[in-house]
This record gives sequence, C-alpha cells and structure tokens, in this order.
Amino acid sequence: MADPRFFKVAGPFTVAEIAKRVGAEIAGAAAADLELHDVAPLETATERELSFLDNRRYLDRFRATRAGAVIVNAKLAPEAPKGATLLITPQPYRAYALAAQAFYPEPPPKPGIAPTAVIDPSATLGEGCAVEHNAVIGPGVVIGKRCAIGANTVLGASVVLGDDVRVGANATLSHSIIGSRVRIYTGVRIGQDGFGFAPDPDAPVKVPQLGRVIVGDDVEIGANTTIDRGAGPDTIIGPGTMIDNLVQIGHNVQIGRGCVLVSQVGISGSTRLGDYVMIGGQGGLTGHLTIGDGAKIGAQAGVMRDVEKGEAVLGSPAMPIREFHYLTAYIRRLATKHRGE
Amino acid sequence: MADPRFFKVAGPFTVAEIAKRVGAEIAGAAAADLELHDVAPLETATERELSFLDNRRYLDRFRATRAGAVIVNAKLAPEAPKGATLLITPQPYRAYALAAQAFYPEPPPKPGIAPTAVIDPSATLGEGCAVEHNAVIGPGVVIGKRCAIGANTVLGASVVLGDDVRVGANATLSHSIIGSRVRIYTGVRIGQDGFGFAPDPDAPVKVPQLGRVIVGDDVEIGANTTIDRGAGPDTIIGPGTMIDNLVQIGHNVQIGRGCVLVSQVGISGSTRLGDYVMIGGQGGLTGHLTIGDGAKIGAQAGVMRDVEKGEAVLGSPAMPIREFHYLTAYIRRLATKHRGE
Amino acid sequence: MADPRFFKVAGPFTVAEIAKRVGAEIAGAAAADLELHDVAPLETATERELSFLDNRRYLDRFRATRAGAVIVNAKLAPEAPKGATLLITPQPYRAYALAAQAFYPEPPPKPGIAPTAVIDPSATLGEGCAVEHNAVIGPGVVIGKRCAIGANTVLGASVVLGDDVRVGANATLSHSIIGSRVRIYTGVRIGQDGFGFAPDPDAPVKVPQLGRVIVGDDVEIGANTTIDRGAGPDTIIGPGTMIDNLVQIGHNVQIGRGCVLVSQVGISGSTRLGDYVMIGGQGGLTGHLTIGDGAKIGAQAGVMRDVEKGEAVLGSPAMPIREFHYLTAYIRRLATKHRGE
Repeated sequence: MADPRFFKVAGPFTVAEIAKRVGAEIAGAAAADLELHDVAPLETATERELSFLDNRRYLDRFRATRAGAVIVNAKLAPEAPKGATLLITPQPYRAYALAAQAFYPEPPPKPGIAPTAVIDPSATLGEGCAVEHNAVIGPGVVIGKRCAIGANTVLGASVVLGDDVRVGANATLSHSIIGSRVRIYTGVRIGQDGFGFAPDPDAPVKVPQLGRVIVGDDVEIGANTTIDRGAGPDTIIGPGTMIDNLVQIGHNVQIGRGCVLVSQVGISGSTRLGDYVMIGGQGGLTGHLTIGDGAKIGAQAGVMRDVEKGEAVLGSPAMPIREFHYLTAYIRRLATKHRGE
Repeated sequence: MADPRFFKVAGPFTVAEIAKRVGAEIAGAAAADLELHDVAPLETATERELSFLDNRRYLDRFRATRAGAVIVNAKLAPEAPKGATLLITPQPYRAYALAAQAFYPEPPPKPGIAPTAVIDPSATLGEGCAVEHNAVIGPGVVIGKRCAIGANTVLGASVVLGDDVRVGANATLSHSIIGSRVRIYTGVRIGQDGFGFAPDPDAPVKVPQLGRVIVGDDVEIGANTTIDRGAGPDTIIGPGTMIDNLVQIGHNVQIGRGCVLVSQVGISGSTRLGDYVMIGGQGGLTGHLTIGDGAKIGAQAGVMRDVEKGEAVLGSPAMPIREFHYLTAYIRRLATKHRGE
Repeated sequence: MADPRFFKVAGPFTVAEIAKRVGAEIAGAAAADLELHDVAPLETATERELSFLDNRRYLDRFRATRAGAVIVNAKLAPEAPKGATLLITPQPYRAYALAAQAFYPEPPPKPGIAPTAVIDPSATLGEGCAVEHNAVIGPGVVIGKRCAIGANTVLGASVVLGDDVRVGANATLSHSIIGSRVRIYTGVRIGQDGFGFAPDPDAPVKVPQLGRVIVGDDVEIGANTTIDRGAGPDTIIGPGTMIDNLVQIGHNVQIGRGCVLVSQVGISGSTRLGDYVMIGGQGGLTGHLTIGDGAKIGAQAGVMRDVEKGEAVLGSPAMPIREFHYLTAYIRRLATKHRGE
C-alpha cells in the first residue's frame, strides 16, 4: 500500500468495475463482486488487492501470488494460482496503469492564489487555477482553466498556457506557448536564448534569438530539462511527446508527435524528429539532422547523420543496430583470437 | 516577423544605415535609401525585409528570394535575383547578427527593486540595477551598475558582480566573483562545494572547499549549468567563454579566453583549458588534464589524456580526429568483408 | 589563505593539537609547540602554515616547501626540507581533510525563521533550525533538529528530514524521507514522478508513481541532480553515498552504502547497486540491472548487463576494463599496420 502520508487511496472497487474501466475480461476464479481495496506487487498482494503480470520474468511470483485479482494476458493466464480472479487483456501494463489511476486518482489543483504569489495585473487566469506561494507571473501572461503553478516558479512576460497545465515548483518559462494538459516538472527551463553567436576573432557576436518554444497538448517535460527558444523559427515539441529529466533541446529543434526522450538526451540546434521517435538515455544528436518517423536511437548513441523512418541505430558514431552488434562481436572475437596466439 | 508579444522591433533602417552598422558594401540593385523594416529568412522575406545567405545549402532559396536586401559574401553575390540589393561582406553570419541586434536591441534592465525582493542592508548595488520579485541578496554582496537579477534568484553572502551582468530567474550564486557583461541563465548554480572527500573505510571525509569561482568579462553560462568552487585554488572561467546548458565544471578547473562548451559537457576537477578551446555536446574530460589553445574536442569525446595546442580529437577514449575516422571506416570495412565471406 | 569574504579561519592550533586531531605522529623538525595559522599548498605555504603531500607528482614542491609543517606518509618523509615539522600518517589526504576542517569549521546554521518563509501550520521543526527567505514548507512536513533550509527552496507535503540536514537554495523535495546529516545542494529535485507510462497507439497512459524516495544518513546530493520517486517500490539511496552534480536517478533504483556517483551519471529505472560502487562521470546504466558490491564503472561507460562484485568495466557497451584497454590498443595497432601497407 502506498504511504498514506503522500498518497490517498480511493475505492474500493469490485472486480467488475475494474474490468469495465480497464477493458478486460473476467476469468479464473471469476469473482466479479470481489471488492478490491488497492493495487500491490504480486509478491505482497493480499486477497483484497489487485496485481498484474506483464513480464515472464515474474512468472514464479504469479504462480504463488495471493492477490485477489490479477491482470494478465490470455497466454499466461493458465499459470494462475487457483483462487485468483483474472482480468484478461492483451495489454496488462496499460490496464494496470488505468486501474492504478482509479485507486490513486491525481488530486485536481485546489483552486486559489497564494497570498505571497506575485501576479501582474495584466495577466489573465482561467477559472479553477491554483497558484502556489511565491510564484511570479509576468505581464501579459495568459493561463487557461484549472492550471496549477508551483511554488517559486516564474512565468515570464506573455507566456501562454492552455487548460489543465501543471507546472512544478522552481521552474522558469519565457517566450513560450504551451498547449493543454501539459506537465512541466520542477526546475524545467523553457524559452531562454538559444546558444547562438557568430564567431569573431575579438569576441563572439550574439545572434538575437527571435523565435519561441511551442509545446503541443499532452506533453510531459521532466525535472531540470532545458528547452531553448528558436533563433528565428520556433522550437517545437509535438503533442503527446514524453521528455524525461535533464534533457537538452537546442534552438529550432522540431519534435513530432508521441516521441519519447529518455533522460540526459541532447538534441542540437535545428534537428528535426518525425513522429514516435524514441531516444535512449544520454543519446546525442548533432545539429541540422532529419530523423524519420518511428526511428529508434539507442542509449548513448551519437547521431551525426540523418536517420531513416523506422531505422534503429546505436553506437557513437551511430550505425544500424544490427551492424553495431555484429561489429562489436566481430572485434571482440578477432582480438580474443589474436591474444590467444 | 518575430512574435510581437515577446519581441519589439526597432527601425526602420535604410540599407545605408545597416551597411555602415555591419561593415558591408552595397551592391546588386544597390538601393541605399531602401527602408528595411525587419529581418526574415530568405524564403519568407518581403521587399521590406533584410535576409542573409551564409550556407551554400540555401543557394536556391537565395536565387528565388524576394527580400529587399540580402547580406552575402562576394563569391555568391552573382547568384542574386535581379531586384535584390546586396550587402557584401566576408562574414555574412556575423553581419546578420549585428543587423538583427539593430532591429531587435535587447531592452536594458528597467531599474528598480521589486517590493518582494529581499536585500540585506549590507549589500551594495550600483545605479540602474533591476532586482525582480523574490530575489534574495545576501550580506556583503557587491553588485555593479545596470545589473539585472531575475525573480527568485539567490545571491549568497559576499558575491561580487561587475557591471551590466544579467542573472536569469531561479539561479543561485555563492562564493563567486563575476566580471562585467556576464550572462547567467535561469537555474545556473555557481559556487557550491566541489565534490571533494578523502576515502575512508567508515565514511568519506569531506575536504573543505576553500576556493572561489572567478568568471571573466563577457562570459555566458547556460541554463541549469553547474560550476563548483575551487578546493583551495579557484575555479576560473576566462573572458568571452560561452557555456551552453546543463554543463558541469568541477572544482579547480581553469578555462581560458573565448572557449566554447556545448551543452551537457562535463569537465572534471583541476583540468585546465587554454584559450579558444571548443568542446562538442556531451564531451567529457577527466581530471588533472591540460588542453592546449585552440584544441577541438568532438561531441561525446571521452578525453583521458592531455590534448596538444590546436589538436582535434574525437571518440571515447579520444584520439586524433583523422585516426578516429580512419579507424571507424577501417573496422566497418573489415567486418563487412568478413561477413561477406 | 582562503578569501576572508567567504571563509572565516579558526585557530591557531599547535602542531601537537593538529597531530592529535588527525591521528598523525610528529617527526622531522618536530616542533610540537609551533603555532599553525592556516592550511596552504606546498608552494605558497609559509612557516606559519600547514601543508600536505599526497601525490608523488608534487615531490619537488615538497622538497622546496617553506611550510612550517607538512602532512606526509612515512615513505616520502625523508625527502622533506630540513626545517619542516612533519605529521606522519598513512593517509595524508584524509588527515589534511580533518586539519582543514579544524581551520575552517563549517558554521552551524544560524537558528531562525526568515520572515518571508512560508511554513504551513501543520509542519513541525526541531530546535535550532534555520529557514531562509522565501522557503516554502508544506503541510505535514517534519524537520529534525539543526536543519538548514535554503532560500526559495520548496518542501512538499509530508516530506521528512532527519537531524542536521542542509538543503541548499532553489531546491525542491516531495514524497521523500531524508535521513540525518544529509546535504542536498542547490537546485536538486527529489521525489517527482518517475518516467512511467504504458505505450498506447493513441497516447501513452501514465502509470501512477506510488513510491517514495528514501535517502539514508550522511548522503550528499550535488547541484541540479534529479532523483525520481518509485513507481510502487521506493527509490533508495544508501547511507554515506556521494552523488555529484547533474546526476539522474530513475524510479525504483536502489543504491547501497558508500557509493560514489560522479557528475552526469544516469541510472535507469529499477537498477540496483550494491555497496561501495563507483561510477565515473557520464556513465550510464540501463534499467533492471544488478551491480555488485565494490564494482567500478568507468567514465562514459554504457552498462547494459549485470556487473559482478568487484568487477571493473569500461566502454559502451561496457566490458571488463582489461578487455577494453586490450581491444582499443589492438584495433589501433591493426589499423596503423594496415594504413602502413
């Protein structure tokens, strides 16, 4: 059970209610009326709790679980212990996510403006917004409905937020237009100058950065991530894209819909990503590249050339993932043989 | 045209005024009196706007542009469309930067202390400073003229800033002496303890970090970058050095003049960089190294040894860039051949 | 001498007092009554100052030093200049750390709550705490004795801190239980949601993150580092572990006792580290790995498999360090030979 100091559990829900909510069929012991009071891992769940199996690695735990009900796919269902009610679905992890959302619904922002918040008179806020202590909201800012602005966060002049946006504490936004249902975590920096200057023997000449950051709906931006505004064109993050912590996105970068950027990724200026691109942790892309839809860029890859639609690359410099694995194995074999001589 | 919510355009300027300002000669249609109202990319610029060509890749766009005037070098000038007035210079990007600065001059700080700022009575501020909401300025801090201190930023005891320094929102400085015309972006951390401790079977013994961070004139430090203070010697950033976002600089590091550190670079303790060193994104340097003037360290390079003056290195472990490219190509050829057999 | 604007020196101490404090034996000129007024490097130290030699590289400086007393091991002691009093110990750097702590004791927090701090009435603070300007302390927070909370820092609801914890400025904590004598530097983010969602053709489904971050005693967490809370299990940092700047620790990660994580390291979700593991700068670990006690993971290593107890690995993908060095040398030799042909 989640620590009640930090999380408040809802429910109980019957198996039938959960099945409907997550789109699963009831099987196994099939106690549709059984009341479930919480979610829990297979190994600790009791008969009052709901668990799930998504990874064959945990099959033993599934066989021995005492959970009242378990979400599982049809293929692994026969391995269930006798007493367990099963919720059958082809996507157990997704179904678990929906069930956990039912037990632990995110509390909506508690509307109200903290007395210590500083809001410029020319800013406008939609109904139901929560502005926490010491937040600073600049002139001309436009905030939609039911947004939450964290403590000590700063929204610079004319920033626009859609509806249901949540900005964590100690974040900074400027020169940016943010969609709806976007989550911006603590310490994020959006809209500052890109790294643009013209070389000069005396001193670099700063190039004014005249674009914005445009963030689509349903985007998440992880803690301490930085997104620079465009130099002239805009920096664009497509809808539904998930960005982890400590990621760097340079000026003029364009990211499509539904991409996933794992932590510490860096994307240099003017590079364009299609839709549903995935980049593993610490992956780096140089500037002015084009990355096709659905490309998969491995962890720590160093991408210096365009990547085709659907291509998977790895290594630094990045190459097709099969070539990378072949090459790595080949070299090790060669060296081992040579050493043996 | 830049979004007027975020940027205010100056001008108009005649071609002659711009030519003088950026040090270019007028040619082509040569309409010195033509009034220019804005800067714009080649493909969208109108006859009222100024554009530039710096990269042969965009030559087609140059040939077809409707821009009233274009900054270009002498070699590519003959490709201009008939109606265009040309501004000829050997450094078009630098000239564009200066022109864009004319159209979009950075607004000076608006002098004044926000009522919610907390300034210790023993701190001194030069004339014309702007201190934004909730900034906290500690005892003994000395700030020069025309500085801007962002909202929710904290300057610890005795920090010194020169003139015309801009510190973004939500930044933290301590134990540091900052030159003039320095820009410190949002979320930067300067002057905290270096990562110094003596190993011990029981628990590491913390080594007091007794140095400072000294930042020269005209330095830029990108968002969420961290610079630790020295352990005894100081950590030093030379004048004109440009540091991007999320860079880590360890204790006792010394960086020369005019260096460029791209985002997510990490430099370990006591390493010394000469002047005009460039380090690509995610490059890493171990401690106690000496990097010569003008060295170029590629993106994601892992430098474990000294680098000579002017040397270019790449790879992890880093090697001369020619060797890296040769080696990479050689191995791929070898493996391909082997696979073919 | 450290800059008196930032550091206040204690003392003087006699050689005898220092010897006792650091556990060293007096030798050389052996002036036990000599008064020492400060610590200083070998090359600048005067007869009133204490220095140390820990690295043969600086032997010449030792031979020529004018320091009144020098901490050194027995083996190098014979190289000392005639006038110097010696403090003999097998661990000179550790002894120097203790001596420097004597001369520069860290000032205790100055108890008191800044008038601009915002503390929820339901929060409880132990005696002797210092809360700086604009800090925001949420409902149900429990803070031990003699803690210091930096300016503009935010502690979310129900966070628990032990005794003698120091949190720097502009940091954010939520959903976390912190031990005693922990140091959390500026800009750290602890306890935010992990990067957890179930894939879905429409839009990723967010998985509620129901765990906490548990930080053991005597841990240090460097500037702008991010530690996500667990998804169900907790994210755990063992006692005495030292974490540098800009490190990323994913949800459910478990780190043992006395580990050292250098800056920009990234550890993906659910990976477990034993005790005394060391990870060099920019090292990356994928998820769900097990890393044995005392393992050493080199700078920029990319670890994709479990690492045995005591094993040292390097490279991306990471391999045993000997194999890495052999392979690197072998390939360079091969390519050089081939080029020569």
